[in-house]
Parts: sequence; C-alpha cells; structure tokens
Amino acid sequence: MRKLAVLTGGGDCPGLNAVIRAIVKKADKHGIEVIGIKDGYHGAVEGDFLPLGYQEVSGILPRGGTILGTSNRDNPFAYVDYNKDATVSVDRSDDVLAHLKAQNVDALLAIGGDGSLHIALELAHKGLNVIGIPKTIDNDLMATDQTFGFQTAVDTAQEALDRLHTTAESHHRIIILELMGRYAGWIALYAGIAGGADVILIPEIPYQFDKVAKAVDMRAQKGKKFSIFVVAEGARPLGGEMVIERQIIGRADPFKLGGIGTKLGKELEAYTKTETRVTVLGHIQRGGSPIAYDRVLATRYGVAAVEAAMEGDFGSMVALRGQDIIQVPISEAVDKLKLVPMNDPVLAAARSLGIIMGD
Amino acid sequence: MRKLAVLTGGGDCPGLNAVIRAIVKKADKHGIEVIGIKDGYHGAVEGDFLPLGYQEVSGILPRGGTILGTSNRDNPFAYVDYNKDATVSVDRSDDVLAHLKAQNVDALLAIGGDGSLHIALELAHKGLNVIGIPKTIDNDLMATDQTFGFQTAVDTAQEALDRLHTTAESHHRIIILELMGRYAGWIALYAGIAGGADVILIPEIPYQFDKVAKAVDMRAQKGKKFSIFVVAEGARPLGGEMVIERQIIGRADPFKLGGIGTKLGKELEAYTKTETRVTVLGHIQRGGSPIAYDRVLATRYGVAAVEAAMEGDFGSMVALRGQDIIQVPISEAVDKLKLVPMNDPVLAAARSLGIIMGD
Amino acid sequence: MRKLAVLTGGGDCPGLNAVIRAIVKKADKHGIEVIGIKDGYHGAVEGDFLPLGYQEVSGILPRGGTILGTSNRDNPFAYVDYNKDATVSVDRSDDVLAHLKAQNVDALLAIGGDGSLHIALELAHKGLNVIGIPKTIDNDLMATDQTFGFQTAVDTAQEALDRLHTTAESHHRIIILELMGRYAGWIALYAGIAGGADVILIPEIPYQFDKVAKAVDMRAQKGKKFSIFVVAEGARPLGGEMVIERQIIGRADPFKLGGIGTKLGKELEAYTKTETRVTVLGHIQRGGSPIAYDRVLATRYGVAAVEAAMEGDFGSMVALRGQDIIQVPISEAVDKLKLVPMNDPVLAAARSLGIIMGD
Amino acid sequence: MRKLAVLTGGGDCPGLNAVIRAIVKKADKHGIEVIGIKDGYHGAVEGDFLPLGYQEVSGILPRGGTILGTSNRDNPFAYVDYNKDATVSVDRSDDVLAHLKAQNVDALLAIGGDGSLHIALELAHKGLNVIGIPKTIDNDLMATDQTFGFQTAVDTAQEALDRLHTTAESHHRIIILELMGRYAGWIALYAGIAGGADVILIPEIPYQFDKVAKAVDMRAQKGKKFSIFVVAEGARPLGGEMVIERQIIGRADPFKLGGIGTKLGKELEAYTKTETRVTVLGHIQRGGSPIAYDRVLATRYGVAAVEAAMEGDFGSMVALRGQDIIQVPISEAVDKLKLVPMNDPVLAAARSLGIIMGD
Repeated sequence: MRKLAVLTGGGDCPGLNAVIRAIVKKADKHGIEVIGIKDGYHGAVEGDFLPLGYQEVSGILPRGGTILGTSNRDNPFAYVDYNKDATVSVDRSDDVLAHLKAQNVDALLAIGGDGSLHIALELAHKGLNVIGIPKTIDNDLMATDQTFGFQTAVDTAQEALDRLHTTAESHHRIIILELMGRYAGWIALYAGIAGGADVILIPEIPYQFDKVAKAVDMRAQKGKKFSIFVVAEGARPLGGEMVIERQIIGRADPFKLGGIGTKLGKELEAYTKTETRVTVLGHIQRGGSPIAYDRVLATRYGVAAVEAAMEGDFGSMVALRGQDIIQVPISEAVDKLKLVPMNDPVLAAARSLGIIMGD
Repeated sequence: MRKLAVLTGGGDCPGLNAVIRAIVKKADKHGIEVIGIKDGYHGAVEGDFLPLGYQEVSGILPRGGTILGTSNRDNPFAYVDYNKDATVSVDRSDDVLAHLKAQNVDALLAIGGDGSLHIALELAHKGLNVIGIPKTIDNDLMATDQTFGFQTAVDTAQEALDRLHTTAESHHRIIILELMGRYAGWIALYAGIAGGADVILIPEIPYQFDKVAKAVDMRAQKGKKFSIFVVAEGARPLGGEMVIERQIIGRADPFKLGGIGTKLGKELEAYTKTETRVTVLGHIQRGGSPIAYDRVLATRYGVAAVEAAMEGDFGSMVALRGQDIIQVPISEAVDKLKLVPMNDPVLAAARSLGIIMGD
Repeated sequence: MRKLAVLTGGGDCPGLNAVIRAIVKKADKHGIEVIGIKDGYHGAVEGDFLPLGYQEVSGILPRGGTILGTSNRDNPFAYVDYNKDATVSVDRSDDVLAHLKAQNVDALLAIGGDGSLHIALELAHKGLNVIGIPKTIDNDLMATDQTFGFQTAVDTAQEALDRLHTTAESHHRIIILELMGRYAGWIALYAGIAGGADVILIPEIPYQFDKVAKAVDMRAQKGKKFSIFVVAEGARPLGGEMVIERQIIGRADPFKLGGIGTKLGKELEAYTKTETRVTVLGHIQRGGSPIAYDRVLATRYGVAAVEAAMEGDFGSMVALRGQDIIQVPISEAVDKLKLVPMNDPVLAAARSLGIIMGD
Repeated sequence: MRKLAVLTGGGDCPGLNAVIRAIVKKADKHGIEVIGIKDGYHGAVEGDFLPLGYQEVSGILPRGGTILGTSNRDNPFAYVDYNKDATVSVDRSDDVLAHLKAQNVDALLAIGGDGSLHIALELAHKGLNVIGIPKTIDNDLMATDQTFGFQTAVDTAQEALDRLHTTAESHHRIIILELMGRYAGWIALYAGIAGGADVILIPEIPYQFDKVAKAVDMRAQKGKKFSIFVVAEGARPLGGEMVIERQIIGRADPFKLGGIGTKLGKELEAYTKTETRVTVLGHIQRGGSPIAYDRVLATRYGVAAVEAAMEGDFGSMVALRGQDIIQVPISEAVDKLKLVPMNDPVLAAARSLGIIMGD
C-alpha cells in the first residue's frame, strides 16, 4: 500500500472533513501517500486531483462541508457533460480507472451515501480496489448502526425546535417544522423527541388526520394552548401520496416549496381554528461544524478505512456495530434503505411519552 | 406610584422576558407592585391578569418568548371575538381602562412594536398613564437607535449562513437565504455582512436582475464557483411588486411559501446554469435565548421604563440614543418605519466590501 | 403500581430534567402518580416532597440542572445534619422508608452515579422497591454503554478546545485544557479527539514526560508552532501521584486550583521554551442545556425505569446496551468504575491518528 | 496609495480575521495591494511578510484568531531576541521602517490594543504612515465607544454563566466566575447583567466584604438558596491589593492560578456556610468565532482604515462614535485606559436591578 485516493460524493454532510483529516493522518503514520479527488465522481472522470498532506488537512476538523468538493449528480457509468449536452450520458468508468492507474493509486476510499457507494461497488466489479465509508445525514444506510452527520443534523433540528417552542408557547400556536427524510424518519424521530414535539410524522407510518388533530385537542384538555409538530418531508397521509418538498435534481419544479408541512398546516388550522405556522428547515440541516459525537465517529471511520485498505479488504465498507467499527461488504449497504422499524426502541419510547405518531 | 401593569404585544422577540424581569426587580426595589396582563391586548380587554413577583421572574432571563403570552391580532379599539364572529369588531378600549382602574393600576408599561405602541398611544389619549418599550426584531422602529431582539435575530441568521456557506462551497452552488424584513432590510443587511454574503437585497433598494446576476459572473472570474445571496422578504425588482413570503394574518393564503427568494432562485438558475437552492428561515428568527447584547439592552429598557413611570413621564417611550437610554414621545416612534437610509454607514461598508446591493 | 417517587443524587448533569419529564409523562399514561424528592437523599431523610404532574415538567426538557435539586454529600446511612454538628453522622435510613411508606410510594426511582446508586442498593436490601437510573458526566459507570450527560460534557469541552485552538495557533503557544475525570479519562479522550488535541493524558495511562514533550518537537518538525494538550484531572506521571484539581468536599483545601494541568504546564514551558497557558474548565462541564443525543438517551432511561417498576423488576438499573435499553442488577453497576480499557477502539483510533497518550 | 501593510498585535481577539478580510476586499476594489506582517511587530522587525489577496482571505470571516499570527511581547523599540538572550533588548525600529520601505509599503495598518497602538504611534513619530485599528476584548481603550471582540467575550462569559446557573441552583451553591479585566470591569459588568449575576465585582469599585456577603443573606430571605458572583480578575477589597490571576509574561509565577475569585470563595464559604465553587474562564474568552455584532463592527473598522489611508489621514485611529466610524488621533486612544465611570448608565442599570457591586 503506497498511495490512496479519496473522494466525497453526494450531499453535504457535517464530518466529511474530519474523515479526510483522519485518513491523511493515519496514512501518514504508515508512509502512505494520499491524493484527493475533486468534486466527487466528477473529478474521478475528469482526472482532477490534489495532493493531501499534513498542511492541507490542518485546521479542517471543525469545518463543515468538504475541502474536496462534492457532487450529487455525476455518475461515471452514466456521465453527463453539463457544459455540453445535459441530455446525453455516456459510460466513462474506464476513464476513472485509467486516471487512478496513471496516478499509481492502490485503492480508492469513497465517502458517500447509497448512490456514491453503489457506484463504488460497480467500480469494484471492474477491478478497482475500493473501500466505502458511509455518509448520510438521513441515517438511512443499511449495515451500519449510525452514519456521521446524523447527530449533528438532529442537533441542528432540535435547536430550531427550541427556538420555535418559545414562539409557539407565547402565541398559542401550532408550529410545524418540516425536516429532511424522504424515505426514513430518523431525523424527525430523534429531533422530535429531543425538541419536545407533541406529534412526529415519519414516512414509515402513514398518518390519519383525525389521530393527528386529536393531539391538539388532548393538549387543550391539559391546559396547553400550543402544539409542536415535527414532520419528515416524506411523511404522508394513509392512502395519500408523498408531497416532496426538497429541491431535487430532475424534478419538474425544483423550486416548489411547501410540501407535506404546508399541506398539513392548512388542514390543521382549518380544523382546529388555531393559528398555525410552518417552517421548512432545509439545507441548514446539512451544513455547519459537526458536534463532538460526529467528529469522533467520522475520525474513527477514516482511520478504519485506511486500516481496511492496508489489510486489503477491498469491496468492504467500514461500519459502526455497537461500540466497534467493523467491515462489511459494500453490497450489504446499498440498494435498500434502513427505515425506522416498527419495533424500534426509540420509536417505542416516543409512543411511551405520549407523542402522537399519527397511526 | 404603587402599582404597574405590563403587557407584551405583537410578534415574539428574544428579550421580552428580560424586560419583564427587569421591570419586576426594579419595581420591587421601590416597593411598587407589578401585575402582568396575559396575551397582550387580549388580556387587557378580557381582564386577564397575573401577579408578577420575584418568584415569577426567577430564571426567565435566558428564555425566549414571553411568560405573559402575546397576541398580534387583538386591538381594543377594534376588538374581534374570534370564538364568536371573526368578521365583527367593536371598540372595547373602555374595558381596558375599567379593568386597570379596578386593579388600581397607576400606569401601563406596553412592550411592543409599531402596532402595539400605536394602541398604547390611543389609550394614552383616553387618559391612561402609559410608558412604551420598543420591541421588534426588524429594528424598523423610529426614535430608537436599536430595538432588543434585533441582534439575536441577526446572530441566528448569521449562524444559518455559516451552515449554508459550507454547503454552497462544497457543491459549487448559489444559495439564497430569505430573511424577515417586509419593509426594512436591517436584518438582511447586518446578517449578510456578518455571514459573508456576496449579494444582499433589501426592500429599500429595488434590484435590477442583471446587476444581481453579474455578481455570480464576477465571483467566477475570481475563481469562486459558489455565491451566497441574502434576501429580505420584502425585496423586489425595480418596477416589480413585493412577493411577500411571511405568513400574515388576513392574507388570502397564509400558507403560500416561496416568495422573492424562490422567484429569484429560479431566474438565477436559469440564467447562470448554476445549481441554486433556497432556504426560508422563517419563525426561527423570532425565538430562542437572547444573546448577551439583547439581554443587557432589554434589561436597561425595563429599568428605564419603571423610572419613567416613577417620574410621571407618561406618553413617553424609552429609547436607545448612542450609549444612553432616553425618553421620547411615543408619537415619534409610531406610524412611520425606520428604513435603511441610503447614506447608512453600514450600508456604505457593505458596498465598500464589494457586496452587490442590486442597484 | 400506583405511585412512584423520584430523586436526583450526586453532581449536576445535563439531562436530569429530561429523565424526570419522561418519568412523569410515561407514568401519567398509566395513571401512576409521581412525587419528587427534594435535594437527593437529603429530602428522602427529611421527608421533603413535591408532587410532579404535567404542569411541573412542562418546559423543562431543554433546561440543565434538576428541578428537584440534588446533593452529593447526604447519605441516609451516615447522615450529617450540617446545621447542627458536621462531625456527627447517624443512620437515618429507616426515616427514608417511613417517609415513603407514609406517602404510599410503591417504588423509588433513583437517578444517580456510583454513590447514589450504592445507597439505592442498600435501601433495596432493607426492602425498598428501587429502580436505578445511571447518571454521570464522567461515563465511568459499569454495566451501561453510556450515561446521559457525557456527550454534552464532551461537546462543551470540545467547544472550549475550538476556542483555545485559534488562540494557540495565533500566538504559537502550548495550550493545556484540564478536564474532569478523576479516575476515568472518557471525557478527555473523546473531547481530545473531537477538539483536535495533539496530546491526551488520562488517568488510566500514567504518562512519561519525555514522551509528552516529544509531541511538541514532532509538531515543530512538521512546521506547527503550537500544540493542544487535553489533560484529565486525574492524569499523573508514571510513578507519580495524582494532583487532584477538582474542589472536593472533605479535602483539606477545596479552593486550591492548579492541578496536573498547571504542574505539566510549568514543566513544558521550561523544557520547550514555548509560551504555555493552562485553562481549567471546571463546573462549566456539568451545566447547560443537554444536546439532542443526551435528551433522547435521558428520555429513554426515564421511560424504561417506569416500565421496569411496572414489571416489578426491583433492584435493577436501566442501562444502554448497543441500541437497546435493558435492565441489569444495580449491584453490577456500583463499587467498580468503568475505566478506559487498553483495547478500547476509540483509544486505538486516537493512537492511529498520531495523538500522543504519554506512554 | 499603492500598497498597504497590515499587522495584528497583542492578545488574541475574535474578529481579527474579519478586519483583515475587510481591508483586503476594500483595498482590492481600489487596486491597492496588501501584504500581511507575520506575528505582529515580530515580523515587522524581522521582515516576515506574506501577500494578502482574495484567496488568502477567503473563508476567514467566521474564524477566531488571526491568520497573520500575533505576539504580545515584541516591541521594535525594545526588541528581545528570545532565541538568543532574553535579558537584552535593543531598538530595532529602524529595521521596521527599512523593511516596509523595501516592500514599497505606503502605510501600515496596525490592529491592536493599547500596547500595539502605542508602538504604532512611536513609529508614526519616526515618519511612518500609520493607521490604528482598536482591538481589545476588555473594551478598555479610550476614544472609541466599543472595540470588536468585546461583545463576543461577553457572550462567551454569559454562556458559561448560563451553564453554571443550573448547577448553582440544583446544588444550592454559591458559584463564582472569574473573568478577564485587570483594570476595567466591562466584561464582568455586561456578562454579569446578561447572565443574571447577584453580585458583580469590578476593579473600579473596591468592594467591602460585608456588603458582598450580605447579598447571600438577602437572597436567602427571598427564598433563594444559591447565588451567582461575577468577579473581574482585577477586583479587590477596599484597601486591599490586586491578586492577579491571569498568566502574564514577566510575572514571577505565570502558572499561579487562583486569584481574587479563589480568595473570595474561601472567605464566602467560611462566612456563609454555603458550599462555594470557583471557575476561572481564562483564555476561552479570547477565542472562537466572533458573533455577528463583532463581525460587522470589525468589517466596518477594516473598511474605514483603508479609507483613512486613502485620505492620507495618518496617525489616526478608526473609532466607533454612536452609529458612526470616525477618525481620532491615535494619541487620544493610548496611555490611558477607559474604565467604567461611576455614572455609567449600564452600571446604574445593574444597581437598579438590585445587583450588589460591593460598595
């Protein structure tokens, strides 16, 4: 093992720089060189690299974002040159292998979520030595107990709830906070409990409006004139369709704001006659300095990924299992999302507290 | 001076509890009793009071919101009973005077913004002893250099910008943050400078799209592939109309999200071919624990209001002038908003930095 | 199960109020009454109770401290009346049982660390129905993967490190931060990794001065003119004695500041000729609003404790094991501290990064 | 005006990077080149420069510290080469002028406190074109209403007080927080009000122990079993001497912790029989990301300094006066500290609240 390449792919996530720093520091101890690939798979296709040494990773631990840049639309197997024709895609995976070979790279460390790791797996199938590092604020990746960035996103959402709480209480309002989570409700579940929500709606549990509206009445009976709702963007009524809020590439209108939170807000205000306000937290959940928990977890992933590469355990992904970082096949992590199971202990705790889940 | 009543009116604002606490502590030193009026002018009309002593204000200094509750739709001179008929309003200002007289209240301390202070002034015209305390996160109240809550709102917006900044840079995106400020751009101006914005659009300066789009090109020339836009909700293109985002009572559709930020985002993405994302910070700006600056200012206002009452300087409002708290006639503060003047030194500093203001 | 009593014992810890709130909310769902015991075992001996209902726990989730008060010097089995004679202690455990019986309490939920749980166990031996809930910011309690409050303390320490980091770098200084941890180095280990420390000294690994001083030289070779040291208060040189810093009851001079951090600082400055500054974070680590992680964990503990009581599983303590909350005998948790084991994976990660542990 | 040099001198202070960034951005607009001097006057003597362009100041706005490095022991007029003989000092001010001339620098922008500005003034007397920019977290510089960094330090201290408050209340303790402020009590005064202190002791008001102890009794009478004391490091008893805590260069024992806070703590615990704990916040007050208020103020100072240089107003310092940045002679700012005057309105507000100032 002489030289490693590292890339960050997919959406921004607090802790990316902590992983990169740990990789460089661990590799340095073993005399292994590291180069960074710019802007995710875009730089892999285009051959856009930068050397990563002690100087480059100095001071980046507390910083959000990624010093390498990222991209969540570039796929070497269906690569689009947006400067030319955005409707044409070609397979340029051979270019990735050629660039890495030309750089004498022994293995690629790919930090990413479901999409980026899927691509990494396909590159592995073509013979590239690949190690995956799980990343998603949504925490919906299989085969790992937790992804870095998730707890920071939960903390950011909880701070927003703390702020909204005082306003809701002072104005006797219903406040709805719409959070990220298209398919999995982890952020909404954890932030809702931490922020004292009365109702939490997640994609895994289609809600019944009457059950939800009942929460407001129940609160009123206890003398509480305000209610806090936390809604994952992928939440939907029983039998209803998802009304996605997030601005997604390729959608008809990426600027249409006002998803399930807004829909529910209108209905609740009409039904309860209580003033209702909706806030969509959006990209604020993705940025900023990682909390200590995520800095430690991200650092551990970075160290473990270099170890896995040194052991030659290619095609594997580092994963948290209990207190340990282990290695699992990348194939176990992708193509299936880790949703909140109905017997999840944190979900059970939410119900025990009396939080309405809508079912 | 034996007894004071205090109310908080209008929108939530960090520092309200700090004012209430200061009033009670200052009054206590002089043996003056204090009662609180619940939910702004609603409680004044309905005669809903609670005693305020040391115990009631203990521990409230760091808390957002108001322990008295507030309301931004109740006006004694055009009072609507929302439980009965929301289309009928009656003058119930005499009830306010009667309730306060029955409670042996010598003077009313009204903490509020333009609307609440206007009502206080009308009550003063009917003979009530009134002292005003200026409150608005928007900082758009005349006759005072600054209102409490403003710097906390700026800090909250700046923290959001710090988070968005790392994402914008990692993804090479244009990020637009829409902030409060229907008529005045103070929050956007200060938060924009503090958060490193490239473009700041405020209601006082109708913008020209080509000037705004130029910023992205200029950034590209300097090798910067991302841009940060801060937009007050009341910003509008030259010759165009205001596209208000905030959920306002009495509007046709209070749940319609997607104001000027969204409109501009679409146009920018189409023009620059750069991925663009929009975040609307919303009510998060109103809540949460006040920063030290606002705690000190709010405390000073509370103390000064009791002093003004003891001096019998009724009809006046306490105000910040330089380093001092002075008293000004309430009439000087209301009916006209303090907009960002074209010769404002902070605005000049923004331009000096190269920030595009759109004109 | 009709009625539960709850007390908080030992040092302050972020999340105590979250546990209390969860207990009351969970009990309320099952029609179980809850009373609080004031000031830990002090109130248990003196019969000082307060009812805990929905109103009492409203709004306490984000608040640090404990609404019940706590005490870390009162032991019913060796009770001292500090208002009378501080040198005399008597066994008043029967009073505790009598008071709880008089109140018709079916079980006691004791939230505390090693000391408080030890007392709970002794009370159980006298026939009291007891459930333990593990609490310590030090995370040094056996039988549970993690205690609530720990991650908040780590976050607080990391924020202090972030602040000190910029100063160290700007001034080319050695900065030493002394953290809590008399016997266990968990806070120092986690905060040190999260805050980018170059050296971490913990009680479990007696350090050799020359190994520690080497870190500064190694940094200099890499062009780094500053270094960050994190030192647990219980750290000590190989063969040396512990120089405890924390202000401890019963110590000869509880006000003597300047423990191992100061000692090391002097030696380092003399040896390296680099300006060195020492900060002792102290009680700031114990207070403040819990982060989301601890709010969720504390809430889960509270819910689980009520469930354990309903199941009649007395003498047990709720504990985190992997992702689950389980019940373990209290006896497994006390009388032995959970130190950082030499094969701890996080310790290994620290070493992998090149962090000097002093051995 | 073709080329400017900038240096940061004295202790670390939040906002230094914001000033540097503003200088570079403003200068860039006028085609003026900027070079940075490393490590304050050390680099000025040694001729250690680095170019400062758009790239160098990118992303530094939120960061604490100074990218230029600083020094608070180097004086060109009495320069010590610490690598050679620390007891010998020589006048090397001519070297400063020679280096700047060799670099074709038209003017020096010196960001610093009393010491650094005094040196700048002496350099001006030797013919150098100098503009001063006021910097000190202590806010004790004459001729300006406020220095940047002060409000951030107050905020940091207030957050520490919020944390300590919950512990004090839960444990019924006296908590003493010792803050920076050797000669001026600004930080203690503002942070004390913002953090809800019961007693604030500042250098300007020598305290009488019986007046201070009385506060604890008064609290007890109101049913409060805890008290919060904020003590500036320079506070002292009437007739007593200053017991300085801060680690100061040239002191006999720079590592002696335990100043006035510790002394007072011992006396209070002995007198009141109430458990007392002391925390010394130390260098944590100097670091970290500046709050929005200081980012805006620092930015305005940077812009104004370039303007002053362009106008040729040398020998002046930029200063805040009300809402405006003006220019004053440096000589008005140095050699005399701005202490808290006895008629200060914020001091009066503290007294009005019932806060004990010790006299």
